[in-house]
Amino acid sequence: MSLFTGLSAFPLTPLAYDQIDEAAFIGLMQRLTTAGVDSITVLGSTGSYAYLTAGERDRIAHLAVEHAGTTPVFVGIGALRTSQILANIDSAQRAGASGLLLAPMTYQPLTEDDVFALFRTVTQHADLPIIVYDNPGTTHFTFNTELYARISALPGIASLKIPGVPAEPVKAREHIAAIRAIIPNHVTIGVSGDAFAATGLRAGGDAWYSVIGGTLPHSALAITRAIQQHRDGDALQESQRLAPLWDLFTAFGGSLRVTAAIAEYLGLVPYQSLPLPIQGLSTSQRARVAEVVEALELAK
Amino acid sequence: MSLFTGLSAFPLTPLAYDQIDEAAFIGLMQRLTTAGVDSITVLGSTGSYAYLTAGERDRIAHLAVEHAGTTPVFVGIGALRTSQILANIDSAQRAGASGLLLAPMTYQPLTEDDVFALFRTVTQHADLPIIVYDNPGTTHFTFNTELYARISALPGIASLKIPGVPAEPVKAREHIAAIRAIIPNHVTIGVSGDAFAATGLRAGGDAWYSVIGGTLPHSALAITRAIQQHRDGDALQESQRLAPLWDLFTAFGGSLRVTAAIAEYLGLVPYQSLPLPIQGLSTSQRARVAEVVEALELAK
Repeated sequence: MSLFTGLSAFPLTPLAYDQIDEAAFIGLMQRLTTAGVDSITVLGSTGSYAYLTAGERDRIAHLAVEHAGTTPVFVGIGALRTSQILANIDSAQRAGASGLLLAPMTYQPLTEDDVFALFRTVTQHADLPIIVYDNPGTTHFTFNTELYARISALPGIASLKIPGVPAEPVKAREHIAAIRAIIPNHVTIGVSGDAFAATGLRAGGDAWYSVIGGTLPHSALAITRAIQQHRDGDALQESQRLAPLWDLFTAFGGSLRVTAAIAEYLGLVPYQSLPLPIQGLSTSQRARVAEVVEALELAK
Repeated sequence: MSLFTGLSAFPLTPLAYDQIDEAAFIGLMQRLTTAGVDSITVLGSTGSYAYLTAGERDRIAHLAVEHAGTTPVFVGIGALRTSQILANIDSAQRAGASGLLLAPMTYQPLTEDDVFALFRTVTQHADLPIIVYDNPGTTHFTFNTELYARISALPGIASLKIPGVPAEPVKAREHIAAIRAIIPNHVTIGVSGDAFAATGLRAGGDAWYSVIGGTLPHSALAITRAIQQHRDGDALQESQRLAPLWDLFTAFGGSLRVTAAIAEYLGLVPYQSLPLPIQGLSTSQRARVAEVVEALELAK
């Protein structure tokens, strides 16, 4: 079975006074391996890869592999410039990663041909399998299914991380089927957008690239294992139970700030663990996050 | 008079095989000082600041000041992380810059409070005056006039670089007057969007932060000086004459790729001078650029 299936947990990269808090990061890694996630993706958007220096990223990749035990580690390699991406690949490969995650970051808007050529260059350079990371909310680059097909046909592409699927189950199934129909069989489809993950897995997603999986692995595993064991009702029930959490993602500017606030509330990472200029949630927003954590018993 | 008036020319940072082409960059600097631009802003969006390493940016700042003679040099300091911005400030100040340019780059979307706090931190750290750089096409952060006012009130803010004004002269004048009404008198308003620069200067803009000014300074100076000498008709006529150039900006994905292609065609910078993954224009697009350069006699 492909490495790129099941629950891939995306841990935060906690900072303390603008330096990586290594002890906190190692703690997150141990939390994930103990919980039994299928893989760990460090330096995803949740891991603040775009904000870190090449040296910090190299350090995180090494720490992750060192503390992941037998759990496969995937490493985000994205950067604005191709040569920086290639250097990140070398670093992740030296660290002992099992896969690489690449989103087409932009400052100047990129064309489809720019992005295709980027993935071609990267697949030619890398020895490890690559996850194509489609995250228009941060990259402002919009893939289409034809571009998915062109890139997925490149040797070395192993998985496609797609944004949230439609909430309506039939539409979600059609969406994933449409992608599945035009990409090679060995390329897995992984869903993102935690609120719709149960729907996406049920609709045929092979993997869940999960923000909450990196901080609340038990909740994410409950949903993932239920789908894998054909207990779809249990998965949907757990996802529905977490609705107040998904509502916070919508109300408070996305999953990153809320997840960091949860990890900070639970004492997993230091207060204000995100890289400035991202200030994180306000005091009143944090109070609401604490209420939801307690009401949903997320601390367990 | 404020340093932040008149024509500020934004040169490219030419690369050759992913390394800065220092001779080509020095050539651009000499071209600008000889032409007599009012200031030079290096490491703007046109100068690919977002793609360069801290070391490359330090080198460009030093080369710029060294070769600018008496022309003031402003340096772009933007980065995704606040601590990196502060390091860029230190570097630009050591190099001898006369001003700093800061756009709120984003990967995760920023809130208004994030951006205000960033500018507050930066003004507290910097000794040099700062240009607030509003470029939603690359940063995906949208300022509003109230935020202009909050930030412009910070000590050390010297100028506001706004995106293109409305094409209609009365609307352009109203737009600039609305901003002028709520920012301190000492803060100048500089227009961008070369196609609308004549309109923007006529409508009360104090400065033109100019992409073509960095590569075709004579054309940009013709427009700027005409407005300053109250020959509005001449300015509008020159801007109108350049319409085929502005049309290329629209048709070929923005000013950067077209300006790089012009500089490459003129032999000012090496072929494919932009940082990958930006591939630059196609062969057929370059042929069209060459036609326009010849027809408009831009090589002069």
